[in-house]
Amino acid sequence: LNKKKVSYSNRGMSLEDDLTRTNEYYLLKNRAVIHKKPIPIQVVNVDYPRRSAAKITEAYYKKASTTDYNGVYRGRYIDFEAKETRNKTSFPLKNFHEHQIKHMNACFEHGGICFVVIRFSSINRVFLLNFPQLKNWWQQQFDENGKKSIPIKALIKEGYEIKYSLAPRLPYLDLIDTLYSFK
Amino acid sequence: LNKKKVSYSNRGMSLEDDLTRTNEYYLLKNRAVIHKKPIPIQVVNVDYPRRSAAKITEAYYKKASTTDYNGVYRGRYIDFEAKETRNKTSFPLKNFHEHQIKHMNACFEHGGICFVVIRFSSINRVFLLNFPQLKNWWQQQFDENGKKSIPIKALIKEGYEIKYSLAPRLPYLDLIDTLYSFK
Ligand SMILES: [Mg+2]
Ligand SMILES: [Mg+2]
Repeated sequence: LNKKKVSYSNRGMSLEDDLTRTNEYYLLKNRAVIHKKPIPIQVVNVDYPRRSAAKITEAYYKKASTTDYNGVYRGRYIDFEAKETRNKTSFPLKNFHEHQIKHMNACFEHGGICFVVIRFSSINRVFLLNFPQLKNWWQQQFDENGKKSIPIKALIKEGYEIKYSLAPRLPYLDLIDTLYSFK
Repeated sequence: LNKKKVSYSNRGMSLEDDLTRTNEYYLLKNRAVIHKKPIPIQVVNVDYPRRSAAKITEAYYKKASTTDYNGVYRGRYIDFEAKETRNKTSFPLKNFHEHQIKHMNACFEHGGICFVVIRFSSINRVFLLNFPQLKNWWQQQFDENGKKSIPIKALIKEGYEIKYSLAPRLPYLDLIDTLYSFK
């Protein structure tokens, strides 16, 4: 037998691309309904040319007030943020906005499934960190001598590595099955 | 005593404004976390002027693939669409896109709370119709002699009128409490 070890590792795709494909796969297989939220844009001016589509000619990006993805899985609300870093050994907490943490905290308190997916793009490793652990890391940064980033060692210990596969690309729901209880 | 009968009826606000204010109130009172999804926009060209914000100079509206609002309420996923009509006696089904019905159907099958909020703007009455009833109306239109719109009488019978109040403006979650079971 001539079994090749196949690598499904990321081939230049962004974390967002990988998650969008993963969610499309989950939707197709009827496992979950999870979508990326559109980027909020403030439209200032629109032209309405005759016989063609409305053309936005002036608009600006707004700061997102929530997170990247949400939807429903096994009857529960699911909400998560995706983040990438070029760093190799730690994830800087400044990549989060406070309103994102507040939003996840509120969702979690209301019974939602909340977490972050962090990709270290230069070493191509992806981790899932559940919200309670993320919240601890977020809060300790304001302590005296608080760390300003999450070491990859902590992500290995407190989080879960998501290994690339063919389909879905990033099978994060398998980890959610072990992390959350479902009735 | 000189009690005035106060009317909280809509004062020129759109249904979307009313629902956004209602959701802000629910968030403030820590009752639910429900947000309007941003309108999806396809960005074609962006200028990056020095020392000022990125300016989008060409973009187009994309067709929404899901619904207007979603979030978490009492541990469950909630997802709904808001629609307005100038009609007085019925709501035309052509106001829905098939992908919106498909999306709500998938969410409902996965245990989500799904419904539509319909406002008759000329008579200023607002109804909530739960997804199973909406689905029946959607499907019958393809039958021979199928109705192309939902009569307001059917909304009164099969749905629930949402009466305007001061805060929240449209207390739709009170109806959800009676329509869905929570553990
Ligand atoms: Mg992100
Ligand atoms: Mg709508």
